[in-house]
Amino acid sequence: MSISSPSLINTPNGYIPASQRIPAMARPFVSDRALKTLDLVEKFVEEECIPADAVFRQQLGQSTAERFTNHPQIMEDLKAKARELGLWNMFLPKNHFENEGAGFSNLEYGLMAECLGRSETASEATNCSAPDTGNMEVFAKYGTEEQKRQWLDPLLKGQIRSAFLMTEPQVASSDATNIELSITRDGQYYVLNGQKWWSSGTGDTRAKVFLVMGKSDPSNPDTYKQQTVVAVPADTPGITIRRMLSVLGYDDAPHGHGHIFFNNVRVHKSNVILGEGRGFEVVQGRLGPGRIHHAMRSVGAAEKALEYFLARINDPRKKPFGKQLSEHGIMLERVARSRIEIDAARLSVLNAAIMIDQGSAKDARKEIAEVKVQVPAMLFDVVDRAIQAHGGGGVSQDFPLASMFAGARTMRIVDGPDEVHILQLGRNENKRGKVLLDKIAAQKQRTEELFKQYKMVQRDVLQLDRRSGNASRL
Amino acid sequence: MSISSPSLINTPNGYIPASQRIPAMARPFVSDRALKTLDLVEKFVEEECIPADAVFRQQLGQSTAERFTNHPQIMEDLKAKARELGLWNMFLPKNHFENEGAGFSNLEYGLMAECLGRSETASEATNCSAPDTGNMEVFAKYGTEEQKRQWLDPLLKGQIRSAFLMTEPQVASSDATNIELSITRDGQYYVLNGQKWWSSGTGDTRAKVFLVMGKSDPSNPDTYKQQTVVAVPADTPGITIRRMLSVLGYDDAPHGHGHIFFNNVRVHKSNVILGEGRGFEVVQGRLGPGRIHHAMRSVGAAEKALEYFLARINDPRKKPFGKQLSEHGIMLERVARSRIEIDAARLSVLNAAIMIDQGSAKDARKEIAEVKVQVPAMLFDVVDRAIQAHGGGGVSQDFPLASMFAGARTMRIVDGPDEVHILQLGRNENKRGKVLLDKIAAQKQRTEELFKQYKMVQRDVLQLDRRSGNASRL
Amino acid sequence: MSISSPSLINTPNGYIPASQRIPAMARPFVSDRALKTLDLVEKFVEEECIPADAVFRQQLGQSTAERFTNHPQIMEDLKAKARELGLWNMFLPKNHFENEGAGFSNLEYGLMAECLGRSETASEATNCSAPDTGNMEVFAKYGTEEQKRQWLDPLLKGQIRSAFLMTEPQVASSDATNIELSITRDGQYYVLNGQKWWSSGTGDTRAKVFLVMGKSDPSNPDTYKQQTVVAVPADTPGITIRRMLSVLGYDDAPHGHGHIFFNNVRVHKSNVILGEGRGFEVVQGRLGPGRIHHAMRSVGAAEKALEYFLARINDPRKKPFGKQLSEHGIMLERVARSRIEIDAARLSVLNAAIMIDQGSAKDARKEIAEVKVQVPAMLFDVVDRAIQAHGGGGVSQDFPLASMFAGARTMRIVDGPDEVHILQLGRNENKRGKVLLDKIAAQKQRTEELFKQYKMVQRDVLQLDRRSGNASRL
Amino acid sequence: MSISSPSLINTPNGYIPASQRIPAMARPFVSDRALKTLDLVEKFVEEECIPADAVFRQQLGQSTAERFTNHPQIMEDLKAKARELGLWNMFLPKNHFENEGAGFSNLEYGLMAECLGRSETASEATNCSAPDTGNMEVFAKYGTEEQKRQWLDPLLKGQIRSAFLMTEPQVASSDATNIELSITRDGQYYVLNGQKWWSSGTGDTRAKVFLVMGKSDPSNPDTYKQQTVVAVPADTPGITIRRMLSVLGYDDAPHGHGHIFFNNVRVHKSNVILGEGRGFEVVQGRLGPGRIHHAMRSVGAAEKALEYFLARINDPRKKPFGKQLSEHGIMLERVARSRIEIDAARLSVLNAAIMIDQGSAKDARKEIAEVKVQVPAMLFDVVDRAIQAHGGGGVSQDFPLASMFAGARTMRIVDGPDEVHILQLGRNENKRGKVLLDKIAAQKQRTEELFKQYKMVQRDVLQLDRRSGNASRL
Repeated sequence: MSISSPSLINTPNGYIPASQRIPAMARPFVSDRALKTLDLVEKFVEEECIPADAVFRQQLGQSTAERFTNHPQIMEDLKAKARELGLWNMFLPKNHFENEGAGFSNLEYGLMAECLGRSETASEATNCSAPDTGNMEVFAKYGTEEQKRQWLDPLLKGQIRSAFLMTEPQVASSDATNIELSITRDGQYYVLNGQKWWSSGTGDTRAKVFLVMGKSDPSNPDTYKQQTVVAVPADTPGITIRRMLSVLGYDDAPHGHGHIFFNNVRVHKSNVILGEGRGFEVVQGRLGPGRIHHAMRSVGAAEKALEYFLARINDPRKKPFGKQLSEHGIMLERVARSRIEIDAARLSVLNAAIMIDQGSAKDARKEIAEVKVQVPAMLFDVVDRAIQAHGGGGVSQDFPLASMFAGARTMRIVDGPDEVHILQLGRNENKRGKVLLDKIAAQKQRTEELFKQYKMVQRDVLQLDRRSGNASRL
Repeated sequence: MSISSPSLINTPNGYIPASQRIPAMARPFVSDRALKTLDLVEKFVEEECIPADAVFRQQLGQSTAERFTNHPQIMEDLKAKARELGLWNMFLPKNHFENEGAGFSNLEYGLMAECLGRSETASEATNCSAPDTGNMEVFAKYGTEEQKRQWLDPLLKGQIRSAFLMTEPQVASSDATNIELSITRDGQYYVLNGQKWWSSGTGDTRAKVFLVMGKSDPSNPDTYKQQTVVAVPADTPGITIRRMLSVLGYDDAPHGHGHIFFNNVRVHKSNVILGEGRGFEVVQGRLGPGRIHHAMRSVGAAEKALEYFLARINDPRKKPFGKQLSEHGIMLERVARSRIEIDAARLSVLNAAIMIDQGSAKDARKEIAEVKVQVPAMLFDVVDRAIQAHGGGGVSQDFPLASMFAGARTMRIVDGPDEVHILQLGRNENKRGKVLLDKIAAQKQRTEELFKQYKMVQRDVLQLDRRSGNASRL
Repeated sequence: MSISSPSLINTPNGYIPASQRIPAMARPFVSDRALKTLDLVEKFVEEECIPADAVFRQQLGQSTAERFTNHPQIMEDLKAKARELGLWNMFLPKNHFENEGAGFSNLEYGLMAECLGRSETASEATNCSAPDTGNMEVFAKYGTEEQKRQWLDPLLKGQIRSAFLMTEPQVASSDATNIELSITRDGQYYVLNGQKWWSSGTGDTRAKVFLVMGKSDPSNPDTYKQQTVVAVPADTPGITIRRMLSVLGYDDAPHGHGHIFFNNVRVHKSNVILGEGRGFEVVQGRLGPGRIHHAMRSVGAAEKALEYFLARINDPRKKPFGKQLSEHGIMLERVARSRIEIDAARLSVLNAAIMIDQGSAKDARKEIAEVKVQVPAMLFDVVDRAIQAHGGGGVSQDFPLASMFAGARTMRIVDGPDEVHILQLGRNENKRGKVLLDKIAAQKQRTEELFKQYKMVQRDVLQLDRRSGNASRL
Repeated sequence: MSISSPSLINTPNGYIPASQRIPAMARPFVSDRALKTLDLVEKFVEEECIPADAVFRQQLGQSTAERFTNHPQIMEDLKAKARELGLWNMFLPKNHFENEGAGFSNLEYGLMAECLGRSETASEATNCSAPDTGNMEVFAKYGTEEQKRQWLDPLLKGQIRSAFLMTEPQVASSDATNIELSITRDGQYYVLNGQKWWSSGTGDTRAKVFLVMGKSDPSNPDTYKQQTVVAVPADTPGITIRRMLSVLGYDDAPHGHGHIFFNNVRVHKSNVILGEGRGFEVVQGRLGPGRIHHAMRSVGAAEKALEYFLARINDPRKKPFGKQLSEHGIMLERVARSRIEIDAARLSVLNAAIMIDQGSAKDARKEIAEVKVQVPAMLFDVVDRAIQAHGGGGVSQDFPLASMFAGARTMRIVDGPDEVHILQLGRNENKRGKVLLDKIAAQKQRTEELFKQYKMVQRDVLQLDRRSGNASRL
């Protein structure tokens, strides 16, 4: 199969392909194969997926009932094209998944994710969409053979979808030790009771398995060992999706975000992931790379917003007060600030990706936390400026900006609100406080020695001990 | 009729009534009658309207078709209560509308509008909702007796609704001289051709009259005299509401924002407002007070967001990392900044209202433009912080914050994007530039005289002309 | 004596006098006498003081030794003029100081302070400069007849100056309960030991009295009753001014900020102010109005910075890239934002002033804290923008902006850093948390009743209790 | 010679050496030799230079006269140590200066510059201080053999210093085509007339050569070919340093910033650099790497500010309101934001350095402009937060923060104010506008084809042409 021609991106005006736009500093880390795939991804996204977005949206339908049950044909057609092009499962990093994935590093896939982030359909079309990606990683890393056969295989093939259920409405689940859904053993079975919300992906009727984190050992003195993750088939009796949550007015169909009740939901104990009490391990292993992927999609979304911004201010029909918008310095300033912020954010994410590639997500904890705060703020500001340049159109359904804005706002909350990452970063940095106090004190000490050496008396220094003195002026 | 008891707001904890929370500086401008009405408005809003909001929303229905045709019963019930309480048409300022309105100043109504802004239903329930308020002002100020009889009377009674059609999609209509909808004379008739969008209120099937601004004299050398406003019955042949626009995912039903086509729409020439070529006069007269009303509703909305913020951080179930959210300094800082920004914004709006009351909207142009920029930015930030404290709930349908956020973002665009007001303010200030250059030069001149007087030589001054010199160091 | 003519401010271009620029909302609070004095103050500041600033600076001299001992003649000449014009001691509010002061309210003086804030010499020239103003209030309010005779009288006449010593280097004195300077009784005497810094005004050799706050009763269980303030003659044996502190490179001569040691400094017990253990009372009584005065001076400084900004962008010699700076939209945007922020800040300060006038500084605690945070941030931003428009000149000695910038930065720390006021505001607001939780709960309760009344079942609501359910989809 | 022991930085607490703190993404670009030198630089800076800073400052003296004529002995001693350690002239990039410099790339030197940026003395001590570095590059790249012998050699040896004179007070020299100093030919001589300011380094009496840019061909139609740079010995008759400029109260002695007059200053025509009319070439070649060096010094300065911040909030004597400052969440948030911003800025600078290494400064124009805006803003914010945590101490001479703050503010102006770089970036991005308009249009076109292909009618699309229609509702 070939991608339809004529190309939208390889225009005579000389659109520079993605492989040549990689920051200089990141280039040594990208293989030739990845460069080629990257350009293919870009071409697929720009020429196939972005034009398909509006069709996909309309095929979903209008009523809530339709939107969570329709499976747009165009998505299946895109998936077929993507597989034909070899653009499938690029997210599985080669250092951990030699066989299952496409064999790219987190950095390499990150660059591709930036392209995918420009389209609403591209991630799913290439089987690289959350939360499936993280869940596939979980199954691949921690799953039993049986679990892999049952869920990983069809997930890798894009036949089913999945969800990860963690957040709960009645507690401050930004601190995951607070979660309350109970998992109790009953012979060969676990029995689950409680509720979850913001269970992304549960709206899609093809989501066949829910990974559910609950509390199995609430009295364990180690609060990070009280939790267990179990794989629960979505049609297990006792599960009710009470309602779908909206995100600033969007339902995010077809995957959506469910509010789900568990009432004596029974699953066999073989459904446990990794082992009882190891829920936090599962979560930790799942989050790092996913945050990088998501961050790079956001970088791509920001680039797209900037493209719309640039197109808008050059739209010949838009001339307030006799000047093209692009002739207004205020607009150019915002373009420039967006350019700076996007480029800076990209470097941060790629650096974190390299750290994961060279070690593990744990080694890159600081870098991942930084990215988790920096990127959503960047995306939010870039989209906000693009919207403003579009006037009323910017908040309407006519441009992709409005839904990007909702998404950007939500990213500051999802997967741990900013504040959690900020405090973690702050506390981590603060550990250096004592060493630095000592270093500065030692430097001051040496300064005093130097004054003596040069036979000088130091003036103008903070005196911290009481001194005798007299009433004379300085 | 009495408001249901027990009171929600006059709790033993000593909720301070609105009349006692008026800023000290504004108090001399508020009559005793207004104080009493203000407290009644607050009671009505807190005890009747806010609890009714969710019911209203659900009575609207779910599908697009329902949402723009249903007329929730609870709104009619609220309107009946409001009339019984005498809370009706408070927006019509006493200095211009002795008979039609409730006899309050813009300042007094502003304080009431702050209360109304806390509820989705309160403004309509008291017949104080945009765009009807501005349209009623237009009819009252500029309408013929026939126009008043036909449209003002039923509007004042809350029997019909209306819309003002100005913005157009194909031009930069932030600069209103750009609008293109053509109004041509054909004997006793005007013929309208073109399109409008962001026509707020056109979704409501009770909207019976559209005030339409178009270009009637495109070759007039005075670009502010090319426009005319005509009143067009909504059911005039040739009008098509092509679609309703969404605002960050919200449809704002039942009033909504229409994208409307005019195809040879004919109305009698007696439907002209104020006169041909006087469209800008109509618009100017309409906008000032409306911006103040809207700004005060936003102040009320911000107060509500802060109340939810405060409630949330004191919710005993929300304890991330072992501490109530209110014990986290980051949260208290945000509360404090919100408090400061809200209070400052309120003073700005009230001051602008007083200027309108003492003169006209024209005299208060600077103050209105300031408020138009300051208030939406404030609301946006306050709501943003409140959302963040709510985590996922904040962007969902469970709290009023998400839709307030969409509204706040949109306010920075609606009714002239920030940039228009900012440039207007900037240009206006800049007129002082020459006078100030002269003043500073004169002060420097006097400084030089003083140096002579004290027999000193001024050192360290910027030398702009002097040349001769020698190679000696300073 | 008459102010020199021709007038610099009453130009044909129609400079609008200060009395006509008072915000509409504040006007009812200003007497006719104050209006007249206000215009006189403005004239004096613009025509006499601002031109004198450079002369004063140069008369101070260059070396540190000179700068803290010279008493520029021009200041004495300005003081003479000011007294002749009746512009003297305007700061003493009429409600507390019927006889000592000029008989203006805090609001009225606030408007004058805005004018004074434009010049480096104006406050001292009119005997309205800190820290003397606060110290005069202390003596007037709490002083014995003897203390008044000895210190208040010459202060009111501008013959001596004074200082208030509170901050200490070795503790976190943003929390004043931490101060450590010890005051012990020895018969008829107090003995002071310890150190103080940021003792503003101590550099001036005319400062004859220091009001010193220390700890006299460190074991008092009420941590707000451990402190005492005593008046200490500056030449008392045992006092050493060890050094003067610089503020971002400025020495703030001639008053300066001393770092002072107390070594067995003995003063008679009659020098106590108000009484032992009442130090906090003295401080509280002193701070409120002073903060308002300082804030209004800052508003004036900001206006001045904006004037320089406007003059600069209209300087015909400054045309980067072929356009006058004022034609660059970026500049106009910054002018507009400055305009908005200054006007908003002024209203906040005036409102706080009115609250003090109508009650006491204690009643206006919230408003004063708001102003203490809002105004320095505003001033900082406005000056920062003005500097940027001046390029290199902006940070140099050629314009008043650089030293204003240093002052603005420092204001965010002086007199309690922002964080103290922010946390106080946050905690104060937070007290409403419980009431608001209850109100929102009660409103939700009423919503449920309304649903019943309309025979509806509420959908889409957060379910906080576990429910039974079944596996069926929504 | 060995660096004094015990080490201040290789403490048992395990301070991680600079070579191990290089961002993962930058590591492949750093040679082993550079790694070793980097650690040596860090050790030299932390153990020798930082302790020497206060001594250097005091040896400079207090009066203006002293400060610009004293040559502190400690600097000569540091220079001797640095040469012994081989830490000399590291700034000259190996790809252009095989013999003259130390043989490092811009990236490698950038990492060292980060260390140098922590101390006031380190850059000069290693002969890596501006403006000499840029001037040495100019001479090495464009100088004649005679020019090299006369000026480059002693500069490389640290025997003399130099200045680059470009900015002028009477024009908007942010646009360098505006400069006016005239250079006219008179036989074998150039005659210079005019004035310069912000001539950094001219205060130092060891500055023996000034590179002066002037206008030699004002009528050249190519405004970028009117300028010429000539090397002028500092003691040439006709040169007067009228005064030294201050920077937010600092004199930046001993190098300082001069305001200089040229009155018929004659130099031989052999002193021209590169050739007549090639002034812009000289400037362009000089600026790129210098901006990177300066940016990396700023990153180092920011790290130092953060270190002081961390030390301060862990100072056991500073406990406002009963809690260590580091226990206040507000402080930790600021630490975290600083961490994020510093790390992001470092990556941006290093990436730009690599681009210069791989091509030329011209290829990295976008990246350099980004860094020129991003880094000063970052430094300003980081230092601002650190100051705030220090209270009054933060703005005083007791900590290095106050002078860093002045420097950070000035960086937003020096070497082209932010606005110039922002507009350049904005305009550059804007060139893509037309291509993007076309791309988006083509994608929409394809969307329409897809709708047809799926036999659907696209709804909800912006209609830009007038349509016929009827009055029926949607």
